[in-house]
Amino acid sequence: VKANDMKIDEIVGGVIQGDRSLLARAITLIESNAPHHFERAQEMLNNLLPHAGKSIRIGITGVPGAGKSTFIEAFGQMLCEKGHRVAVLAVDPSSTMTGGSILGDKTRMENLVKHPNAFVRPSPSGGTLGGVHRKTRETIALCEAAGYDVILIETVGVGQSEVIVRGMVDFFMLLVLTGAGDELQGMKKGIMELADAIVVNKADGDNLSRALKTKSEYNQILHFLQPATKGWETEAYTCSSLQGDGIEDMWNVIGKFVTETTKSGGFQTRRKTQAREWLNSSIADQLHQHFLQNQAVKDILPQIMEDVMEEKRTVSSAVELLFAKYTGRGF
Amino acid sequence: VKANDMKIDEIVGGVIQGDRSLLARAITLIESNAPHHFERAQEMLNNLLPHAGKSIRIGITGVPGAGKSTFIEAFGQMLCEKGHRVAVLAVDPSSTMTGGSILGDKTRMENLVKHPNAFVRPSPSGGTLGGVHRKTRETIALCEAAGYDVILIETVGVGQSEVIVRGMVDFFMLLVLTGAGDELQGMKKGIMELADAIVVNKADGDNLSRALKTKSEYNQILHFLQPATKGWETEAYTCSSLQGDGIEDMWNVIGKFVTETTKSGGFQTRRKTQAREWLNSSIADQLHQHFLQNQAVKDILPQIMEDVMEEKRTVSSAVELLFAKYTGRGF
Repeated sequence: VKANDMKIDEIVGGVIQGDRSLLARAITLIESNAPHHFERAQEMLNNLLPHAGKSIRIGITGVPGAGKSTFIEAFGQMLCEKGHRVAVLAVDPSSTMTGGSILGDKTRMENLVKHPNAFVRPSPSGGTLGGVHRKTRETIALCEAAGYDVILIETVGVGQSEVIVRGMVDFFMLLVLTGAGDELQGMKKGIMELADAIVVNKADGDNLSRALKTKSEYNQILHFLQPATKGWETEAYTCSSLQGDGIEDMWNVIGKFVTETTKSGGFQTRRKTQAREWLNSSIADQLHQHFLQNQAVKDILPQIMEDVMEEKRTVSSAVELLFAKYTGRGF
Repeated sequence: VKANDMKIDEIVGGVIQGDRSLLARAITLIESNAPHHFERAQEMLNNLLPHAGKSIRIGITGVPGAGKSTFIEAFGQMLCEKGHRVAVLAVDPSSTMTGGSILGDKTRMENLVKHPNAFVRPSPSGGTLGGVHRKTRETIALCEAAGYDVILIETVGVGQSEVIVRGMVDFFMLLVLTGAGDELQGMKKGIMELADAIVVNKADGDNLSRALKTKSEYNQILHFLQPATKGWETEAYTCSSLQGDGIEDMWNVIGKFVTETTKSGGFQTRRKTQAREWLNSSIADQLHQHFLQNQAVKDILPQIMEDVMEEKRTVSSAVELLFAKYTGRGF
């Protein structure tokens, strides 16, 4: 029986009981781009929302090669062994173009995927980044309703993906390699200022002393930046996903973060702000699409855009003209 | 005779001839919030646009006390004495709240305002920041049509004003004081990454050696950041608006910037991109206003927003419900 054919309350009940196979099918329903699945998915979600929200949402980013998968494997296993239930999701902008996925290859986390407390799901593929965004946020809610209390969301640093992930997590971690100076020059603008922790990975063997040096270089730079979370000092740490060193320490750092921001109220405030901003940006996206699909707008927009770009027409008069067409009247 | 009562072609002709008093009246027409002035202002602007675009647009920002006014006074006078015609405008977010203006007090630039080659205009007051934005961009075009070949746009670092000014200028300058470390910690996120030059002001007397040290500290940090303009290396400089040291050097830096980016094509590309982004953001603003003014939307938005913020309702279903009301149908 496909989730698409099942009764909503059966799926809802199964997810709440932590049935992994029903959870997977529920996610598939959310990921469906078929319009007739949308109503079912939303009904299911609105029934599951009262059971969601009770997790720590952690974002993890870093350039390719920074060791995100091995870190998540080590970090996730450590949490599972402590009795936590860990869901691993991904936001992968490249999947919107190629249909492929950074987490498609589950063998990258072969030990973690076998653990009964872990649930690993590749990035939804196809569609727009906005679609991936929505599906990931709704998948978080499903996983929480299914009892996962730690949600790890991996992303590669492409396009706006870090900003999107920062907007859906409580704690955001940037994984880096040794050689801060060199790496920083290739690093995207503003990304360090999104992070609650910078983790210098692969701090083992011959690389250890360089990793410690890199950590202190990052700490020097962080000193000059405003922290991502008010009242929390972003610091650099080292870890070895291979040896396990520093992995549990990162969990303690996150625990301290949650305790302090819950006490100050910042934790709940951020979640509310994130929800509000997501609604506002979704409304803006929908308005934009509605506008671009208008035939009268379609007919004149290319020429108007050209005129504005050549500074032959003012933006004000362009907007006026477009809106007169859009609304079918002057305004 | 007020500009509002004059014929459009009289105003247009006068502005093109560089008539300062007509230029001032034309700007007043643009700044008018009266709906019946809008059509006239747009007709005037569309007639003047063919004469606009031939200037270097320079943005200048810095915290209060960084010496923006004294720098602009010294820099503007030096340019006027070289035969340039210099217009000084301002984007002041506080004017949207208080009706006051950072450039309202013209005595701050008392020598520059007297120079026949200079035109100083306070920030438009009242209205939204979006309105100030539009008015400033349209005033740039008017000043260019009137023959001003250097446009200086001052802004204090409040809200999104630097991002707005960065979006309307060719070259963006950040004025700072000595003590980089201390100042940087209070500096807004990402602002250094908007700048094409960082100028350590007040590099004179007892302050000179500290200014040189601060310059080298900024250069160290800039080394780690991506430049604001592709192919241009943002550097820190020192100057003394009081003594005049370094003022002409900054003009040489800008000249080099314009030469290099014109050669690479980056100069024109940025202007086109700026115009496109401004049109897109104006459309988005207008769509948002249109949406918020819809009575059916007004009736349900507060409760829906509340439910989304409490994670009781999904964003997808909230958007669906709002759009069904907005468009008067399901979709």
